[in-house]
Amino acid sequence: MKRPNIAVLGATGVVGREILKVIEETKLPYNEIKLLSSAKSAGTEVEFMGKTLIVEEAKPESFVGVNIVLASAGASTSKALAPEIVKRGCVLIDNSSAFRMDENVPLVIAGVNDEDLKKHKGIVANPNCSTSQLMLVLKPLHQHAIMKRVIVSTYQSVSGAGIDAINELTENTRAVLNNEKFENKVFKKTIAFNVIPQIDVFCKNGYTKEEMKVTNETRKILHLEEDFPISCTAARVPVYRGHSEAVTIEFSQYMSAEMVRTILKNAYGVVVIDNPEKFEYPTACDSAGTNPVYVGRIREDLAFKNGISLWCVADNLLIGAALNTVRIAQRIASMGLY
Amino acid sequence: MKRPNIAVLGATGVVGREILKVIEETKLPYNEIKLLSSAKSAGTEVEFMGKTLIVEEAKPESFVGVNIVLASAGASTSKALAPEIVKRGCVLIDNSSAFRMDENVPLVIAGVNDEDLKKHKGIVANPNCSTSQLMLVLKPLHQHAIMKRVIVSTYQSVSGAGIDAINELTENTRAVLNNEKFENKVFKKTIAFNVIPQIDVFCKNGYTKEEMKVTNETRKILHLEEDFPISCTAARVPVYRGHSEAVTIEFSQYMSAEMVRTILKNAYGVVVIDNPEKFEYPTACDSAGTNPVYVGRIREDLAFKNGISLWCVADNLLIGAALNTVRIAQRIASMGLY
Repeated sequence: MKRPNIAVLGATGVVGREILKVIEETKLPYNEIKLLSSAKSAGTEVEFMGKTLIVEEAKPESFVGVNIVLASAGASTSKALAPEIVKRGCVLIDNSSAFRMDENVPLVIAGVNDEDLKKHKGIVANPNCSTSQLMLVLKPLHQHAIMKRVIVSTYQSVSGAGIDAINELTENTRAVLNNEKFENKVFKKTIAFNVIPQIDVFCKNGYTKEEMKVTNETRKILHLEEDFPISCTAARVPVYRGHSEAVTIEFSQYMSAEMVRTILKNAYGVVVIDNPEKFEYPTACDSAGTNPVYVGRIREDLAFKNGISLWCVADNLLIGAALNTVRIAQRIASMGLY
Repeated sequence: MKRPNIAVLGATGVVGREILKVIEETKLPYNEIKLLSSAKSAGTEVEFMGKTLIVEEAKPESFVGVNIVLASAGASTSKALAPEIVKRGCVLIDNSSAFRMDENVPLVIAGVNDEDLKKHKGIVANPNCSTSQLMLVLKPLHQHAIMKRVIVSTYQSVSGAGIDAINELTENTRAVLNNEKFENKVFKKTIAFNVIPQIDVFCKNGYTKEEMKVTNETRKILHLEEDFPISCTAARVPVYRGHSEAVTIEFSQYMSAEMVRTILKNAYGVVVIDNPEKFEYPTACDSAGTNPVYVGRIREDLAFKNGISLWCVADNLLIGAALNTVRIAQRIASMGLY
């Protein structure tokens, strides 16, 4: 099979750089690669596979001859470039929120709903980071015992908000420790030694967009009813990398903690670390830079007859963004969908 | 009415020092005051009401002539000294977990279940910090519309774990920023830039003791059924002071977000900060050093027909410990229960 020509759009961003690392690590088969960015970052030199590549400004004609575009350039860039990309016969795998809820665009977590890729019309959307890790956990459980209800509280790291957010955590933390003054710029409230119960803007129903992404994207990816009962509270914590989630699931039938443990031990992309008496459970720091979704603290929930609570941790830049993008590219290539 | 003689047991600890501050600020009426501690801390000089008091070692005879003991000295000290305290006719208000679930001991949040104080037999227990703030929120709502189910995820600061925990957060955060090596001592996992899904030891059912405290203490304080559906995930976050909680409540009847807002605006000890479009919602840092329980992010929950989700924040050392202890002492004095 002919290997695809690929392009990485947003190659200089936090996620773009992770995409390049994952392409290298997973040995994604490709013929030619092209790195693209905004005019501002064009000209940046990037080390890749032992070579120095120069990032080019993304223009409509940049996509001529490209088969698959792995994009993480923000919703407005994606919206502007998507028609140009699709017109030139490329498949766009988009990390932004621009097309996720578009009914003509499959929203895919590799290993969860690969079949949906077959319905693509030029664009495939990559889910929001907090949704992504949850899907690899919920899918195998839902296959075993139909879910009736899901309640999620997130503990999200700052890296999802970009390099300025990472720097703000460092600088403001240092200022607090040194008893110096500091300003909040990226975050509306102080992130150093604090928890901010807001990620993204607010919707009319009182939820943030981030919270509604978890609700709506989960319904779409798992092919649940449009009003499937799922709610989320999304909070930002002073952590660099790795999202943690406290998840409570009501099932339609009894599920023991041991059954859930067994199902998840055999699930794609999931690693169970659940030996609490030895202090073995996953934390954000452990997940940073690694591919699996980790699950621990699996227990029968005390608020539901058939409920399970668990703690789910993953690297938000990898399974929550770059890794899933590359995995989708692999599947699009191997399924001949470009 | 004769003012009581009071003693503060554990006067040199993190909570003990807060108790002294609160006594001063709230002008708790007392006749004489005595500061007590372990042998190790005895002799410490403490500034109080413009005077220097010397902390004495707590011995059984220390309690002769004392009417009310405000104690925060840990469960084993409380267990050892309680019989001596009660024998000498004092009322012990205990911050530890030693007597909370004892059926002969009222477990009280001032303003929530003051009537239970009348049943005391010498000991009154102060609830766990993560329970305390929740009670001031749930009680007025439950009075309006019977609760059917509660799910809580906590984001707890390190100060509840004492001065060594506070120092460990500072030192290890500094080490991470400076790229230096560090050790975890108080915490089993790194607390700097991380989230630890364990507070206290594990129970057989997979919950931590901290989580079971929220479940069992809530049932006791609000006089709910023994198996009332309430579950908790308790996590430690790198925050110095102030616990945050994501709370989802299912009610037996419809409650609009606006109804909940109105009820809580009129509730004892609660301040509603809920204007998300102006980024107005409570965070841990805002709560530090202040008395109210703050509630924001009030919204109709998407996982329940009659559900509400909200974000609840309070200073864990105050309403979660010292403030409630002093408020109980005030009530015991004013109700003539000593």
